[in-house]
Parts: sequence; structure tokens; C-alpha cells
Amino acid sequence: MSKNEQSELSSYTLPVIGVMHSPYGQKFAVPRQSGLVPDALSTIEFFAPYGDPQAFAGLQGFSHLHVIFMFHQIPEGPFRAQVRPPRLGGNQHVGVFATRSPFRPSRLGLSVVKLENLTVQHGLVCLQVSGADLVDGTPIIDVKPYIPFVDALPEAQGGFAAAPPELKQVIFTERAQEQLHSLGQREFKALREILAQDPRPAYKAEQEDPKRYYALLFGFNVGFCVSSDTVTVVEALKA
Amino acid sequence: MSKNEQSELSSYTLPVIGVMHSPYGQKFAVPRQSGLVPDALSTIEFFAPYGDPQAFAGLQGFSHLHVIFMFHQIPEGPFRAQVRPPRLGGNQHVGVFATRSPFRPSRLGLSVVKLENLTVQHGLVCLQVSGADLVDGTPIIDVKPYIPFVDALPEAQGGFAAAPPELKQVIFTERAQEQLHSLGQREFKALREILAQDPRPAYKAEQEDPKRYYALLFGFNVGFCVSSDTVTVVEALKA
Repeated sequence: MSKNEQSELSSYTLPVIGVMHSPYGQKFAVPRQSGLVPDALSTIEFFAPYGDPQAFAGLQGFSHLHVIFMFHQIPEGPFRAQVRPPRLGGNQHVGVFATRSPFRPSRLGLSVVKLENLTVQHGLVCLQVSGADLVDGTPIIDVKPYIPFVDALPEAQGGFAAAPPELKQVIFTERAQEQLHSLGQREFKALREILAQDPRPAYKAEQEDPKRYYALLFGFNVGFCVSSDTVTVVEALKA
Repeated sequence: MSKNEQSELSSYTLPVIGVMHSPYGQKFAVPRQSGLVPDALSTIEFFAPYGDPQAFAGLQGFSHLHVIFMFHQIPEGPFRAQVRPPRLGGNQHVGVFATRSPFRPSRLGLSVVKLENLTVQHGLVCLQVSGADLVDGTPIIDVKPYIPFVDALPEAQGGFAAAPPELKQVIFTERAQEQLHSLGQREFKALREILAQDPRPAYKAEQEDPKRYYALLFGFNVGFCVSSDTVTVVEALKA
């Protein structure tokens, strides 16, 4: 293929190398960026031939990874130049390339996760990671080591996303606590961190909101209500 | 499309949204990570419909961007689990997912660049950026704002790439200096930064190397020799 022919390609087809297994059973309540829920553990299962343990030799010297993935639940559609990010209350329009919104031409997501463990199952690698913000079943396109001298720019300016979102306190009814007794301590902590983000559509935060919401988390259908500064978990039913 | 059908997709086709115009006329002498040559300016030209100025509204509040691009000069081929990174002398094998090597299943690259300027030409956006490590003509798949509270992890551990490569001093013969008189001051500085990286194959650094190398940079065919700690630019011919 000549250089000219290459530069004229208007699209590229990329293989799926693995799949994410995460506590997030649906889009609702997935944290809005990576790192916001550090106690949530997820597992990337790699497919053959990509899961070859040799392909990961040397990775364990790195503490963090970039994960590139498909927002596969976002339907393909015509290009839309603007989105309304939840961070801005959901009613202000911003250019799609000024956001990490999934409604982008590539439908590619980019997250930083902490590498917790590498295991081999049936000859294929699984990476256990923490802090991911990927819905269960997300197709994985690439993983790359996070290189701090290249990737860490703490002095960078963060536009309208300059600071992490404020957190709410999370309380559990006695009933919910009992229903969740099978969760491990770290999972329970992660569940708190998830709900502390207030997963509701942002405009809901501006008014009295008596509604009970349900989110699929850790295999439970978790029902909760939100008041001004508190998320109350009312019940948690085995999903 | 049901959830099951979606998760069974084994590849995704992504549109090219733009093209990179950079000082790097060929792969040889492209810096080995972004940020290593901060004075090099590049321009991302966005295609219609993606270059719509509305799609970039709000971007200028961010100082840095992630750029996701295709290593389009790397031919497609069967999966190879290991590569020999230049950082390790080019003779040690490492798992491909423990590196940022272009020889990966996705052929996707990820770089962090500084946003310098946004202009609109014929109704389409061009982003001037600095610190990029993309060869001229690289197809762009996505740009995303760099969000420091998410992306900046200065405490992360960087494996075998824990520190930037050592730099060589760069000197110019009188002839080379004259031939390069049309370069602006910043371009000349960037040329120094590029050559200070020692662009030769890494194993060459281990022995006496009398060879003269040529690199296509800023439209010049730049001829240079390397001794133990110095790069000498011998000539620079208009390419």
C-alpha cells in the first residue's frame, strides 16, 4: 500500500482484544470518570491470541494502565457537534471534543486504571484492575502502560472539569444492609463510593426529588433515594 | 441490536476525523513519546463534518489534549506477543501490552499534547499543538480533553520507562547552520530537542558509529553523526 493510499483511508477496523467484567450492570451509576471509585475491582479478560501471557511480560512493573475501549451501548448515528455534559447540569451545550462524552465519532473511551493483579486462566491472561468506569461487558480495544513522565501532568488546566464532583454521604436502611450481607468489605466500600457520586441525571439535583432509583451494581438491584446531601439505600434485591 | 449481538462483535470500524501535519517527515527521528520535544509545533486539521467549530466549543479551557491516532505506516499483520522496545536497547523482548509500541493489534497510538491555538479555515477547525510525536500525515481518530484530576498520576510507577531518556548535546557545522537559516527560532530549538534524543536504533549507541544518518525534519533532509555524547549536524538539504 503506497503512502498516498494509506492517507486516503477514511476509516480503520480494529479488533476487540478482550472484554471487561465490572460491578456496573448497566450504564446508570457507572462513575463519570475513572479513578472516582478506587475500591471497585474489575477484570479484563483477554481473548486468544491476544491473551498470550508473553504479551504481558513486563507489565507488572507498571502500577497503572490506560484502557481504550468501545462505548458499545451507544448506538451509531450521525455526527452531532455538541453534547450536554452531566458535569454542567445536563442543560448546557459544549463541543463534543471538549468532553469525554461517549457520543463521539469514534465511540472510543479512555480510562486510567490501577493494575491490581495478573492471572492466567485456560492459558489466557486476566488483568484485575481498580478504579475503572466501564460497564460490564465493554469490548476492550487496547491496554497500554501508564508512563508517568509522559502522561502525568498535574499542572494541566482542566476547563469545566477542574475538580472531582462533590460527594454525598451514603446511608443504608437496616433492610438494605441485611440484603447486602454477602458483599465483601471492599465491595461494600466501593458501593458507597459509587452512590456518593449521586448517579442521577444532573438536573435532578436542582429540585426536590422523591423518586426511588434502581441501579444494577455487584449483581444487586440497588434501590436508593437522594436528598440534598444524602443518598439513602432503601433495598438491594438479587438481580 | 440486542446486548448479546453487540458483545459478540469482534471488531469495530472507526472513522478518521482529521490528519496531523507535523515536522516529522518520516518515522525515523520521531520522538519516542509525546512531550519530549516541547518546542515542536504540529497542526491537526479536522475533516468535515467533524471540524465544525461548534464541536470544539469549550476546549480552550483545557491546556492539554489526549490524541488517539493510527500508526498508519505499520503494516497489518499477524499478532506478535512480544516486541523489542528501543528503550531497552532494542534487543530485549517485552510483552507488547507492556509497551507503547506501534506493533499492537489496534495499531492505535495515544499521546498527550499541549493545546496552543485553535483556528478555523474554510469553516473547519485546525488545532495547533506542541509536544506531539506523530509522523506527518497521521490519521486522527479522536481528541479528548486531558482532565488532570483523572489523568495526572505523578505517583504512578513507570516500569522500565521510569524516566525520560538521556539527552545528547547537539552542535551544527557552519554549513548546516547556513542551510537552516530559514527556520524560525522555535523550529531551530525543536530541531535541537529532536536530535538530542539520539534517533538512531538503540543498539547503535553501544558501539563506535561512523555512519551519517539522514532524517526528514521541517522539510529538510538533515544529515548528522553521533559520537558518545554529541550529535553533530553536518548538513541540511531542502527536501
